[in-house]
Amino acid sequence: MSEARYADRRLRALEAAEAAGLGGILVSPGPDLAYLTAYAPPPLERLTLLVLSAGADPTLVVPTLERPLAESAAGAPGLTVLDWRDGRDDPYGVVAAMLGPGSYAVSDRTWASHLLSLQRAAPGRPFFAASEALPLLRAVKDADEIRRLRAAGSAADAAFADVIAGPFVGRAETEIALELDRLLREHGHERVDFTVVGSGPNGASGHHEPGERRIEPGDAVVMDFGGVRDEYCSDLTRTVFVGEPSQEQREIYAIVLAAQQAAFEAVRPGVAAQDVDRAARTVITDAGYGDRFVHRTGHGIGLEVHEPPYIVEGDETPLEPGMTFSDEPGIYLAGRFGVRIEDQVAVTDRGAERLNEADRELTIVA
Amino acid sequence: MSEARYADRRLRALEAAEAAGLGGILVSPGPDLAYLTAYAPPPLERLTLLVLSAGADPTLVVPTLERPLAESAAGAPGLTVLDWRDGRDDPYGVVAAMLGPGSYAVSDRTWASHLLSLQRAAPGRPFFAASEALPLLRAVKDADEIRRLRAAGSAADAAFADVIAGPFVGRAETEIALELDRLLREHGHERVDFTVVGSGPNGASGHHEPGERRIEPGDAVVMDFGGVRDEYCSDLTRTVFVGEPSQEQREIYAIVLAAQQAAFEAVRPGVAAQDVDRAARTVITDAGYGDRFVHRTGHGIGLEVHEPPYIVEGDETPLEPGMTFSDEPGIYLAGRFGVRIEDQVAVTDRGAERLNEADRELTIVA
Repeated sequence: MSEARYADRRLRALEAAEAAGLGGILVSPGPDLAYLTAYAPPPLERLTLLVLSAGADPTLVVPTLERPLAESAAGAPGLTVLDWRDGRDDPYGVVAAMLGPGSYAVSDRTWASHLLSLQRAAPGRPFFAASEALPLLRAVKDADEIRRLRAAGSAADAAFADVIAGPFVGRAETEIALELDRLLREHGHERVDFTVVGSGPNGASGHHEPGERRIEPGDAVVMDFGGVRDEYCSDLTRTVFVGEPSQEQREIYAIVLAAQQAAFEAVRPGVAAQDVDRAARTVITDAGYGDRFVHRTGHGIGLEVHEPPYIVEGDETPLEPGMTFSDEPGIYLAGRFGVRIEDQVAVTDRGAERLNEADRELTIVA
Repeated sequence: MSEARYADRRLRALEAAEAAGLGGILVSPGPDLAYLTAYAPPPLERLTLLVLSAGADPTLVVPTLERPLAESAAGAPGLTVLDWRDGRDDPYGVVAAMLGPGSYAVSDRTWASHLLSLQRAAPGRPFFAASEALPLLRAVKDADEIRRLRAAGSAADAAFADVIAGPFVGRAETEIALELDRLLREHGHERVDFTVVGSGPNGASGHHEPGERRIEPGDAVVMDFGGVRDEYCSDLTRTVFVGEPSQEQREIYAIVLAAQQAAFEAVRPGVAAQDVDRAARTVITDAGYGDRFVHRTGHGIGLEVHEPPYIVEGDETPLEPGMTFSDEPGIYLAGRFGVRIEDQVAVTDRGAERLNEADRELTIVA
């Protein structure tokens, strides 16, 4: 059954490639390869590449010493495995000889060194980034994937509930970050990818690295954290206030919360991704803070924490049931404080549902 | 002083680029960027790129929300930081407009999606992989780097000494792998990247993923493990025997050990990297096992666990004092057992010194 799942994904990927006018897809180690074969080696300077080509057997090209590992992957049955040996074979020539006519998509994370060698081995061949040529390869999740994203989201929610039960005043950002790391693991994450903690003025830097600043009364504290649970990603942001917030902090929080809700309510099948961004941006712009919302409203999530579709002006992807992405507007007042509120959401038949349920109401910590 | 170190590395990199006939270097998040700026963000779909161009100020192009983080890096002073905003700016056009005449090197790990967008923004511009155009960018280590590589190696040595003090019979490969993970961290590793444990027939697969196989008397057990300590990599392989080895196992072990020693003794300034491979390969081929040595003899090591120079036929890099790489021949008898012995070595003025001192004599475990 598991084999069939991967073979089916490869078939659908190739159909999508043909529909996009491509001759096939070249897939390097990373989320696309994991999705299509369940083989998840680290990307390395030795070429490992899945070649999906119209009219040919799906073929995995691997270094000789990786062959046994590749063949043991859950999605390997049905693949032709072709190995190449250090100092003897030219894997790029091997791949170039396998290509049919036309353009090929290349998975985004393919190393430039591999792509440049492929371009040299197949001169004149047009290549396109998979995220551009086949942006929706992994975008529509099946029920099992949604279940796993929800479980990762719930684990992040639980970590948030735990961390706000403790004190904040006097602790360094790094201490809170370490605690979030520990809590995510306690709640079942096998990997933690980021634990952004920005307090006071540091919260006005979107991706602030936690530092030695100690948290003070009156601070807004932006916490943006996530990782991987059961292969799927979590990504949650909440902004809490240390003691009674100022009138301005309350206003900014209310604007961001309204923008986040407006984006959520804009989600339904057929709506363009950029329209969800516009829904959030309009609320913030109308409130006079448009130039303080310096990033897109969201990004797709799945095997990767950032993947298509992107909730940004210019992404016209029509939303489909099963697509999952973040809804995370923010306002950043340089030198003073920032507010961001982020949930993951899934498109349903009629609208959207949240995959996070951590409290969104203004939260005061001690 | 720290700032000066990074500025100096950038100057030397640009000099090397000019000497190689390049207009400059484009550097993405990863080890090259860390080496040149101390800025180490995760690689993402949003473009972050250091542009080193002959006659121009070194410029770091970053997403707006990453700007404060980028500016706080130890190597940021002296860099011009240019930020671009989601949905408003085209970062590839910005970079293309900054390029001077000629070819550019691109760091190997640059994502294909970024390279393809750059190629479109700068049509006809030749790009080359940094590992090919400037393979030695990070190859010659300074005294501080050698010290850190030695410390990482010593930590791996200590993990090996600890693990062989315990029992092997009846334990699953995964248990030994988890223990190695724990031991590497105990000995100061901040990250563990791999803990290969291949027992009996599994040891004949070069990069076997530890599984549920339980170790038996008579097994050879290949352990290949490493990670990162103080930013620099460790990578150690030892093969141990569970109880008294067979005559054949002793013979194979002796051949691999002799090959490893022959490679070590071949190392000195001016020798080509491939000659070190030949030294090991000759010993194994003369013993009749040439076709069972299915990989190169070694790889450079530093901020990356695999980096130039490569100790492989075709790599003609003349070795220089300060270069560091692995010496790791092996023999693999499919379905039966494998033997690999790996140390990291540093080229000195007169020859080489090992960065690992874990026991290389045939080791019997219980």
